[in-house]
Amino acid sequence: MSKKDSLIIGRQPLVEALQSGRVIDKILLQKNANGEVVSHIRALSKEYDVPLQMVPAEKLNYMTRANHQGVIALAALVVYQDLDTVLAEIEEKGEVPLLMMLDGITDVRNIGAIARSAYCCGAQAIIIPDKGVGALNEEAMKSSAGALEHLHIIRVNSLIKAVDTLHEKGVQVFTSEMKADKKIYELPLAEACCIIMGNEERGVQPYLAKAADSFFSIPMVTQFDSFNVSVAAGIILYEAMKNRL
Amino acid sequence: MSKKDSLIIGRQPLVEALQSGRVIDKILLQKNANGEVVSHIRALSKEYDVPLQMVPAEKLNYMTRANHQGVIALAALVVYQDLDTVLAEIEEKGEVPLLMMLDGITDVRNIGAIARSAYCCGAQAIIIPDKGVGALNEEAMKSSAGALEHLHIIRVNSLIKAVDTLHEKGVQVFTSEMKADKKIYELPLAEACCIIMGNEERGVQPYLAKAADSFFSIPMVTQFDSFNVSVAAGIILYEAMKNRL
Repeated sequence: MSKKDSLIIGRQPLVEALQSGRVIDKILLQKNANGEVVSHIRALSKEYDVPLQMVPAEKLNYMTRANHQGVIALAALVVYQDLDTVLAEIEEKGEVPLLMMLDGITDVRNIGAIARSAYCCGAQAIIIPDKGVGALNEEAMKSSAGALEHLHIIRVNSLIKAVDTLHEKGVQVFTSEMKADKKIYELPLAEACCIIMGNEERGVQPYLAKAADSFFSIPMVTQFDSFNVSVAAGIILYEAMKNRL
Repeated sequence: MSKKDSLIIGRQPLVEALQSGRVIDKILLQKNANGEVVSHIRALSKEYDVPLQMVPAEKLNYMTRANHQGVIALAALVVYQDLDTVLAEIEEKGEVPLLMMLDGITDVRNIGAIARSAYCCGAQAIIIPDKGVGALNEEAMKSSAGALEHLHIIRVNSLIKAVDTLHEKGVQVFTSEMKADKKIYELPLAEACCIIMGNEERGVQPYLAKAADSFFSIPMVTQFDSFNVSVAAGIILYEAMKNRL
Protein backbone atom coordinates (compact mmCIF):
# COMPACT_ATOMS: atom_id res chain seq x y z
CA MET A 1 0.00 0.00 0.00
CA SER A 2 1.52 3.29 -1.01
CA LYS A 3 1.50 6.33 1.23
CA LYS A 4 -1.16 7.83 -1.01
CA ASP A 5 -3.42 4.85 -0.62
CA SER A 6 -3.55 5.33 3.10
CA LEU A 7 -4.99 8.86 2.78
CA ILE A 8 -8.72 9.37 2.49
CA ILE A 9 -9.26 12.79 0.99
CA GLY A 10 -12.42 14.83 1.40
CA ARG A 11 -15.63 14.57 3.36
CA GLN A 12 -17.69 12.18 1.24
CA PRO A 13 -14.89 9.61 0.74
CA LEU A 14 -14.41 9.63 4.53
CA VAL A 15 -18.12 8.99 5.14
CA GLU A 16 -18.03 6.12 2.66
CA ALA A 17 -14.87 4.65 4.15
CA LEU A 18 -16.35 4.72 7.65
CA GLN A 19 -19.65 3.23 6.48
CA SER A 20 -17.84 0.44 4.70
CA GLY A 21 -16.12 -0.50 7.96
CA ARG A 22 -12.65 0.70 7.00
CA VAL A 23 -10.57 1.48 10.08
CA ILE A 24 -9.41 5.07 10.29
CA ASP A 25 -6.41 6.03 12.43
CA LYS A 26 -7.09 9.71 12.64
CA ILE A 27 -9.10 12.49 11.00
CA LEU A 28 -7.30 15.75 10.24
CA LEU A 29 -9.67 18.70 10.08
CA GLN A 30 -8.70 22.14 8.84
CA LYS A 31 -8.72 24.70 11.66
CA ASN A 32 -10.85 27.33 9.93
CA ALA A 33 -13.13 24.96 8.01
CA ASN A 34 -16.70 26.14 7.73
CA GLY A 35 -19.05 25.47 10.63
CA GLU A 36 -21.20 22.91 8.88
CA VAL A 37 -18.18 20.77 7.89
CA VAL A 38 -16.76 21.02 11.40
CA SER A 39 -19.94 19.82 13.07
CA HIS A 40 -20.38 17.00 10.56
CA ILE A 41 -16.82 15.75 11.02
CA ARG A 42 -17.03 16.08 14.81
CA ALA A 43 -20.18 13.98 14.75
CA LEU A 44 -18.49 11.31 12.60
CA SER A 45 -15.43 11.30 14.87
CA LYS A 46 -17.68 10.69 17.85
CA GLU A 47 -19.93 8.14 16.17
CA TYR A 48 -17.06 6.01 14.87
CA ASP A 49 -14.73 6.72 17.82
CA VAL A 50 -11.91 8.06 15.61
CA PRO A 51 -9.44 10.61 17.03
CA LEU A 52 -9.85 14.08 15.51
CA GLN A 53 -7.03 16.58 15.12
CA MET A 54 -7.38 20.23 14.11
CA VAL A 55 -4.59 21.26 11.73
CA PRO A 56 -3.69 24.35 9.68
CA ALA A 57 -4.68 24.33 6.01
CA GLU A 58 -0.97 24.23 5.06
CA LYS A 59 -0.61 20.77 6.52
CA LEU A 60 -3.45 19.38 4.42
CA ASN A 61 -2.19 21.19 1.32
CA TYR A 62 1.22 19.66 1.89
CA MET A 63 -0.25 16.16 2.14
CA THR A 64 -2.21 16.29 -1.09
CA ARG A 65 -2.76 18.37 -4.19
CA ALA A 66 -6.31 17.08 -4.47
CA ASN A 67 -9.30 19.13 -3.32
CA HIS A 68 -9.46 18.01 0.30
CA GLN A 69 -12.30 20.30 1.41
CA GLY A 70 -10.56 20.68 4.77
CA VAL A 71 -10.65 16.98 5.62
CA ILE A 72 -8.06 14.24 5.27
CA ALA A 73 -8.28 10.96 7.12
CA LEU A 74 -5.50 8.46 7.64
CA ALA A 75 -6.64 4.93 7.01
CA ALA A 76 -5.17 2.30 9.28
CA LEU A 77 -2.55 0.06 7.72
CA VAL A 78 -3.24 -2.57 10.36
CA VAL A 79 -6.47 -4.07 11.60
CA TYR A 80 -6.97 -3.16 15.22
CA GLN A 81 -8.31 -5.78 17.54
CA ASP A 82 -10.06 -5.97 20.84
CA LEU A 83 -8.18 -6.96 24.01
CA ASP A 84 -10.78 -9.48 25.20
CA THR A 85 -10.94 -11.15 21.82
CA VAL A 86 -7.17 -11.46 21.56
CA LEU A 87 -6.81 -12.82 25.09
CA ALA A 88 -9.51 -15.38 24.36
CA GLU A 89 -7.72 -16.39 21.17
CA ILE A 90 -4.38 -16.77 22.97
CA GLU A 91 -6.04 -18.95 25.60
CA GLU A 92 -7.75 -21.04 22.95
CA LYS A 93 -4.39 -21.76 21.35
CA GLY A 94 -3.04 -22.88 24.71
CA GLU A 95 -0.42 -20.11 24.71
CA VAL A 96 0.72 -18.01 27.66
CA PRO A 97 0.11 -14.30 27.03
CA LEU A 98 3.21 -12.15 26.45
CA LEU A 99 2.07 -8.64 25.59
CA MET A 100 3.71 -5.25 25.16
CA MET A 101 1.89 -2.05 26.04
CA LEU A 102 3.29 1.12 24.45
CA ASP A 103 2.61 4.22 26.53
CA GLY A 104 3.27 7.27 24.38
CA ILE A 105 6.11 5.98 22.24
CA THR A 106 6.24 8.56 19.50
CA ASP A 107 9.09 7.46 17.24
CA VAL A 108 7.62 5.22 14.57
CA ARG A 109 10.97 3.48 14.06
CA ASN A 110 11.03 2.52 17.72
CA ILE A 111 7.49 1.17 17.42
CA GLY A 112 8.51 -0.84 14.38
CA ALA A 113 11.63 -2.23 16.04
CA ILE A 114 9.65 -3.19 19.16
CA ALA A 115 7.09 -5.01 17.01
CA ARG A 116 9.90 -6.85 15.23
CA SER A 117 11.46 -7.99 18.51
CA ALA A 118 8.02 -8.88 19.90
CA TYR A 119 7.28 -11.11 16.96
CA CYS A 120 10.75 -12.73 17.05
CA CYS A 121 10.34 -13.49 20.75
CA GLY A 122 6.85 -14.96 20.58
CA ALA A 123 4.81 -12.08 21.98
CA GLN A 124 1.28 -12.23 20.64
CA ALA A 125 0.15 -8.64 20.78
CA ILE A 126 0.95 -4.98 21.21
CA ILE A 127 -1.43 -2.69 23.04
CA ILE A 128 -1.44 0.97 22.02
CA PRO A 129 -3.55 3.93 23.06
CA ASP A 130 -5.65 5.72 20.46
CA LYS A 131 -3.85 8.99 21.17
CA GLY A 132 -0.29 10.06 21.89
CA VAL A 133 1.43 7.22 20.09
CA GLY A 134 3.36 7.32 16.82
CA ALA A 135 1.30 6.27 13.82
CA LEU A 136 1.56 2.71 12.56
CA ASN A 137 2.45 4.10 9.17
CA GLU A 138 4.65 3.00 6.29
CA GLU A 139 7.85 3.78 8.16
CA ALA A 140 6.75 1.85 11.24
CA MET A 141 5.80 -1.08 8.97
CA LYS A 142 9.20 -0.98 7.32
CA SER A 143 11.05 -0.79 10.63
CA SER A 144 9.04 -3.75 11.87
CA ALA A 145 10.18 -5.81 8.86
CA GLY A 146 6.54 -6.80 8.46
CA ALA A 147 6.03 -7.89 12.07
CA LEU A 148 3.25 -5.34 12.57
CA GLU A 149 1.17 -7.33 10.13
CA HIS A 150 1.69 -10.57 12.02
CA LEU A 151 1.05 -9.40 15.57
CA HIS A 152 -2.31 -8.60 17.07
CA ILE A 153 -2.49 -4.83 17.41
CA ILE A 154 -4.89 -3.84 20.15
CA ARG A 155 -5.89 -0.20 20.22
CA VAL A 156 -7.68 1.03 23.32
CA ASN A 157 -8.98 4.42 24.40
CA SER A 158 -7.73 3.90 27.96
CA LEU A 159 -4.52 2.09 28.87
CA ILE A 160 -5.51 1.99 32.54
CA LYS A 161 -8.78 0.23 31.67
CA ALA A 162 -6.74 -2.22 29.60
CA VAL A 163 -4.58 -2.89 32.68
CA ASP A 164 -7.77 -3.61 34.65
CA THR A 165 -8.88 -6.06 31.98
CA LEU A 166 -5.45 -7.74 32.02
CA HIS A 167 -5.67 -8.11 35.80
CA GLU A 168 -9.14 -9.61 35.54
CA LYS A 169 -7.81 -12.19 33.10
CA GLY A 170 -4.86 -13.06 35.32
CA VAL A 171 -2.21 -11.29 33.25
CA GLN A 172 0.46 -9.60 35.39
CA VAL A 173 1.65 -6.16 34.43
CA PHE A 174 5.31 -5.19 34.74
CA THR A 175 7.07 -1.95 34.10
CA SER A 176 10.57 -0.58 34.39
CA GLU A 177 11.66 1.82 37.08
CA MET A 178 15.27 2.96 37.35
CA LYS A 179 15.46 2.37 41.11
CA ALA A 180 13.57 -0.94 41.20
CA ASP A 181 15.16 -3.65 43.34
CA LYS A 182 14.18 -6.42 40.97
CA LYS A 183 16.30 -7.02 37.91
CA ILE A 184 14.55 -7.87 34.68
CA TYR A 185 15.79 -11.48 34.90
CA GLU A 186 14.21 -11.92 38.33
CA LEU A 187 10.68 -11.40 37.04
CA PRO A 188 8.34 -14.37 36.43
CA LEU A 189 8.33 -13.69 32.71
CA ALA A 190 7.23 -17.23 31.85
CA GLU A 191 3.85 -16.44 33.40
CA ALA A 192 1.10 -14.52 31.62
CA CYS A 193 2.37 -10.95 31.53
CA CYS A 194 2.28 -7.60 29.83
CA ILE A 195 5.20 -5.16 29.87
CA ILE A 196 4.54 -1.43 29.74
CA MET A 197 7.15 0.52 27.77
CA GLY A 198 7.16 4.27 28.27
CA ASN A 199 7.80 7.34 26.20
CA GLU A 200 11.37 7.96 24.95
CA GLU A 201 11.82 11.02 27.16
CA ARG A 202 9.56 10.80 30.16
CA GLY A 203 9.02 7.06 30.59
CA VAL A 204 5.76 5.44 31.68
CA GLN A 205 3.15 7.87 32.96
CA PRO A 206 2.94 7.69 36.80
CA TYR A 207 -0.79 6.88 36.97
CA LEU A 208 -0.19 3.90 34.74
CA ALA A 209 3.04 2.78 36.40
CA LYS A 210 1.21 2.72 39.75
CA ALA A 211 -1.13 0.05 38.42
CA ALA A 212 1.74 -2.34 37.67
CA ASP A 213 2.24 -5.50 39.72
CA SER A 214 6.04 -5.38 39.70
CA PHE A 215 8.80 -2.98 38.82
CA PHE A 216 12.11 -4.00 37.32
CA SER A 217 15.31 -2.44 36.15
CA ILE A 218 17.67 -3.51 33.43
CA PRO A 219 21.11 -3.63 35.05
CA MET A 220 23.75 -1.26 33.72
CA VAL A 221 27.47 -1.06 34.34
CA THR A 222 27.65 2.61 33.48
CA GLN A 223 24.97 4.80 35.02
CA PHE A 224 24.92 7.54 32.46
CA ASP A 225 21.62 7.26 30.73
CA SER A 226 19.59 4.29 29.70
CA PHE A 227 19.08 2.03 26.74
CA ASN A 228 17.20 3.20 23.70
CA VAL A 229 13.55 2.21 24.25
CA SER A 230 13.51 -0.31 21.41
CA VAL A 231 16.74 -1.88 22.68
CA ALA A 232 15.29 -2.06 26.21
CA ALA A 233 12.14 -3.70 24.83
CA GLY A 234 14.33 -6.16 22.91
CA ILE A 235 16.24 -7.14 26.04
CA ILE A 236 13.01 -7.63 28.01
CA LEU A 237 11.44 -9.70 25.26
CA TYR A 238 14.60 -11.74 24.92
CA GLU A 239 14.58 -12.48 28.65
CA ALA A 240 10.90 -13.46 28.47
CA MET A 241 11.63 -15.78 25.54
CA LYS A 242 14.55 -17.40 27.39
CA ASN A 243 12.26 -17.97 30.37
CA ARG A 244 9.78 -19.69 28.09
CA LEU A 245 12.13 -21.84 26.02
CA MET B 1 29.08 21.65 17.56
CA SER B 2 26.62 22.60 14.85
CA LYS B 3 26.37 20.76 11.59
CA LYS B 4 28.05 23.68 9.89
CA ASP B 5 31.03 23.57 12.21
CA SER B 6 31.84 20.06 11.15
CA LEU B 7 32.27 21.06 7.50
CA ILE B 8 35.62 22.30 6.27
CA ILE B 9 34.99 24.21 3.07
CA GLY B 10 37.60 24.82 0.39
CA ARG B 11 41.12 23.66 -0.31
CA GLN B 12 43.18 25.97 1.88
CA PRO B 13 41.03 25.53 5.02
CA LEU B 14 41.39 21.75 4.53
CA VAL B 15 45.18 22.01 4.28
CA GLU B 16 45.26 24.08 7.46
CA ALA B 17 42.92 21.73 9.31
CA LEU B 18 45.07 18.73 8.38
CA GLN B 19 48.30 20.51 9.32
CA SER B 20 46.86 21.51 12.69
CA GLY B 21 46.15 17.85 13.44
CA ARG B 22 42.37 18.05 13.17
CA VAL B 23 40.86 14.64 12.38
CA ILE B 24 38.95 14.51 9.11
CA ASP B 25 36.36 11.83 8.49
CA LYS B 26 36.17 12.17 4.75
CA ILE B 27 37.07 14.49 1.89
CA LEU B 28 34.42 15.11 -0.77
CA LEU B 29 35.95 16.14 -4.09
CA GLN B 30 33.96 17.44 -7.04
CA LYS B 31 33.96 15.02 -9.95
CA ASN B 32 34.99 17.44 -12.65
CA ALA B 33 37.30 19.62 -10.53
CA ASN B 34 40.36 20.88 -12.38
CA GLY B 35 43.36 18.62 -12.65
CA GLU B 36 45.63 20.56 -10.34
CA VAL B 37 43.05 20.55 -7.51
CA VAL B 38 42.41 16.85 -8.02
CA SER B 39 46.05 15.88 -7.74
CA HIS B 40 46.61 18.13 -4.73
CA ILE B 41 43.62 16.69 -2.85
CA ARG B 42 44.57 13.13 -3.81
CA ALA B 43 48.03 13.73 -2.40
CA LEU B 44 46.59 15.11 0.84
CA SER B 45 44.18 12.20 1.14
CA LYS B 46 47.10 9.81 0.81
CA GLU B 47 49.47 11.73 3.07
CA TYR B 48 46.99 12.05 5.92
CA ASP B 49 45.25 8.72 5.26
CA VAL B 50 41.80 10.27 4.90
CA PRO B 51 39.12 8.58 2.73
CA LEU B 52 38.37 10.49 -0.49
CA GLN B 53 35.03 10.41 -2.26
CA MET B 54 34.28 11.84 -5.72
CA VAL B 55 30.87 13.54 -5.77
CA PRO B 56 28.86 15.61 -8.25
CA ALA B 57 29.02 19.39 -7.88
CA GLU B 58 25.32 19.41 -6.88
CA LYS B 59 26.11 17.57 -3.68
CA LEU B 60 28.68 20.14 -2.60
CA ASN B 61 26.38 23.01 -3.61
CA TYR B 62 23.64 21.48 -1.53
CA MET B 63 25.90 21.25 1.51
CA THR B 64 27.03 24.86 1.49
CA ARG B 65 26.41 28.19 -0.19
CA ALA B 66 30.02 29.19 0.38
CA ASN B 67 32.62 29.02 -2.38
CA HIS B 68 33.80 25.45 -1.89
CA GLN B 69 36.18 25.30 -4.87
CA GLY B 70 35.20 21.68 -5.41
CA VAL B 71 36.31 20.51 -1.96
CA ILE B 72 34.42 19.94 1.28
CA ALA B 73 35.79 17.87 4.13
CA LEU B 74 33.87 16.44 7.04
CA ALA B 75 35.67 16.97 10.33
CA ALA B 76 35.38 14.15 12.81
CA LEU B 77 33.10 14.78 15.79
CA VAL B 78 34.96 12.12 17.74
CA VAL B 79 38.65 11.52 18.30
CA TYR B 80 39.69 8.27 16.72
CA GLN B 81 42.08 6.04 18.58
CA ASP B 82 44.46 3.26 17.83
CA LEU B 83 43.57 -0.37 18.65
CA ASP B 84 46.89 -1.17 20.33
CA THR B 85 46.75 1.94 22.48
CA VAL B 86 43.18 1.24 23.59
CA LEU B 87 43.91 -2.42 24.39
CA ALA B 88 46.95 -1.34 26.44
CA GLU B 89 44.82 1.17 28.30
CA ILE B 90 42.12 -1.41 29.07
CA GLU B 91 44.77 -3.79 30.38
CA GLU B 92 46.34 -1.05 32.49
CA LYS B 93 43.00 -0.39 34.14
CA GLY B 94 42.70 -4.09 34.95
CA GLU B 95 39.54 -4.42 32.83
CA VAL B 96 38.55 -7.29 30.56
CA PRO B 97 38.09 -6.12 26.96
CA LEU B 98 34.53 -6.06 25.63
CA LEU B 99 34.57 -4.55 22.16
CA MET B 100 32.12 -4.14 19.31
CA MET B 101 33.23 -4.19 15.68
CA LEU B 102 30.81 -2.63 13.19
CA ASP B 103 31.14 -4.12 9.72
CA GLY B 104 29.32 -1.87 7.28
CA ILE B 105 26.51 -0.62 9.49
CA THR B 106 25.19 2.29 7.49
CA ASP B 107 22.30 3.65 9.52
CA VAL B 108 23.68 6.31 11.82
CA ARG B 109 20.82 5.81 14.26
CA ASN B 110 21.74 2.15 14.59
CA ILE B 111 25.36 3.13 15.20
CA GLY B 112 24.25 5.59 17.86
CA ALA B 113 21.97 3.07 19.58
CA ILE B 114 24.73 0.43 19.57
CA ALA B 115 27.16 2.92 21.15
CA ARG B 116 24.58 3.74 23.79
CA SER B 117 24.06 0.07 24.68
CA ALA B 118 27.81 -0.55 24.59
CA TYR B 119 28.45 2.20 27.09
CA CYS B 120 25.56 1.11 29.35
CA CYS B 121 26.90 -2.46 29.38
CA GLY B 122 30.53 -1.62 30.08
CA ALA B 123 32.06 -2.13 26.67
CA GLN B 124 35.17 0.00 26.27
CA ALA B 125 35.40 0.55 22.55
CA ILE B 126 33.84 0.36 19.13
CA ILE B 127 35.91 -0.57 16.11
CA ILE B 128 34.83 0.83 12.75
CA PRO B 129 36.33 0.67 9.28
CA ASP B 130 37.36 3.91 7.58
CA LYS B 131 35.01 3.16 4.67
CA GLY B 132 31.52 1.74 4.29
CA VAL B 133 30.20 2.70 7.67
CA GLY B 134 27.67 5.41 8.55
CA ALA B 135 29.27 8.68 9.62
CA LEU B 136 29.62 9.42 13.30
CA ASN B 137 27.70 12.62 12.70
CA GLU B 138 25.29 14.77 14.71
CA GLU B 139 22.48 12.27 14.32
CA ALA B 140 24.63 9.34 15.44
CA MET B 141 25.76 11.42 18.42
CA LYS B 142 22.19 12.21 19.33
CA SER B 143 21.05 8.59 18.97
CA SER B 144 23.92 7.54 21.20
CA ALA B 145 22.70 9.92 23.93
CA GLY B 146 26.32 11.08 24.18
CA ALA B 147 27.81 7.60 24.53
CA LEU B 148 29.95 8.08 21.41
CA GLU B 149 31.91 10.70 23.30
CA HIS B 150 32.58 8.38 26.21
CA LEU B 151 33.63 5.26 24.35
CA HIS B 152 36.94 4.72 22.63
CA ILE B 153 36.28 4.88 18.90
CA ILE B 154 38.88 2.92 16.97
CA ARG B 155 38.99 3.51 13.23
CA VAL B 156 41.00 1.08 11.16
CA ASN B 157 41.65 0.74 7.46
CA SER B 158 41.32 -3.04 7.61
CA LEU B 159 38.91 -4.91 9.86
CA ILE B 160 40.64 -8.20 9.15
CA LYS B 161 43.97 -6.80 10.31
CA ALA B 162 42.20 -5.56 13.46
CA VAL B 163 40.97 -9.12 14.03
CA ASP B 164 44.58 -10.32 13.74
CA THR B 165 45.66 -7.77 16.32
CA LEU B 166 42.83 -8.83 18.64
CA HIS B 167 43.91 -12.46 18.31
CA GLU B 168 47.51 -11.56 19.08
CA LYS B 169 46.37 -9.81 22.25
CA GLY B 170 44.24 -12.75 23.36
CA VAL B 171 40.88 -11.21 22.54
CA GLN B 172 38.39 -13.71 21.12
CA VAL B 173 36.22 -12.68 18.20
CA PHE B 174 32.57 -13.75 17.96
CA THR B 175 30.00 -13.19 15.32
CA SER B 176 26.41 -14.16 14.70
CA GLU B 177 25.36 -16.75 12.18
CA MET B 178 21.71 -17.73 11.79
CA LYS B 179 22.45 -21.46 11.75
CA ALA B 180 25.06 -21.48 14.53
CA ASP B 181 24.65 -24.24 17.12
CA LYS B 182 25.76 -22.05 19.98
CA LYS B 183 23.28 -19.68 21.51
CA ILE B 184 24.49 -16.24 22.51
CA TYR B 185 24.21 -17.17 26.21
CA GLU B 186 26.52 -20.14 25.71
CA LEU B 187 29.49 -17.98 24.70
CA PRO B 188 32.30 -17.19 27.17
CA LEU B 189 31.36 -13.51 27.16
CA ALA B 190 33.07 -12.82 30.47
CA GLU B 191 36.41 -13.41 28.73
CA ALA B 192 38.18 -10.80 26.62
CA CYS B 193 36.09 -10.60 23.46
CA CYS B 194 35.03 -8.57 20.49
CA ILE B 195 31.66 -9.02 18.75
CA ILE B 196 31.34 -8.32 15.03
CA MET B 197 27.99 -6.83 14.03
CA GLY B 198 27.18 -6.89 10.34
CA ASN B 199 25.42 -4.67 7.86
CA GLU B 200 21.63 -4.27 8.22
CA GLU B 201 20.90 -6.15 5.00
CA ARG B 202 23.74 -8.53 4.23
CA GLY B 203 25.22 -9.24 7.65
CA VAL B 204 28.93 -9.71 8.34
CA GLN B 205 31.10 -10.04 5.23
CA PRO B 206 32.12 -13.68 4.72
CA TYR B 207 35.91 -13.07 4.69
CA LEU B 208 35.59 -11.38 8.06
CA ALA B 209 33.15 -13.89 9.55
CA LYS B 210 35.60 -16.67 8.64
CA ALA B 211 38.19 -15.15 10.95
CA ALA B 212 35.88 -15.39 13.98
CA ASP B 213 36.61 -17.86 16.80
CA SER B 214 32.98 -18.73 17.49
CA PHE B 215 29.59 -18.27 15.90
CA PHE B 216 26.41 -17.75 17.83
CA SER B 217 22.73 -17.21 17.20
CA ILE B 218 20.19 -15.28 19.17
CA PRO B 219 17.31 -17.70 19.73
CA MET B 220 13.95 -16.77 18.22
CA VAL B 221 10.51 -18.26 18.72
CA THR B 222 9.26 -17.05 15.36
CA GLN B 223 11.59 -17.63 12.43
CA PHE B 224 10.44 -14.86 10.18
CA ASP B 225 13.27 -12.42 10.04
CA SER B 226 15.72 -11.26 12.67
CA PHE B 227 16.11 -8.56 15.24
CA ASN B 228 16.98 -5.03 14.23
CA VAL B 229 20.80 -4.79 14.33
CA SER B 230 20.85 -2.33 17.23
CA VAL B 231 18.43 -4.52 19.19
CA ALA B 232 20.58 -7.59 18.48
CA ALA B 233 23.69 -5.70 19.63
CA GLY B 234 21.81 -4.64 22.78
CA ILE B 235 20.88 -8.24 23.59
CA ILE B 236 24.47 -9.43 23.06
CA LEU B 237 25.90 -6.63 25.19
CA TYR B 238 23.31 -7.30 27.88
CA GLU B 239 24.31 -10.98 27.96
CA ALA B 240 27.98 -10.03 28.18
CA MET B 241 27.26 -7.65 31.03
CA LYS B 242 25.25 -10.32 32.91
CA ASN B 243 28.18 -12.69 32.48
CA ARG B 244 30.46 -10.09 33.98
CA LEU B 245 28.33 -8.92 36.93
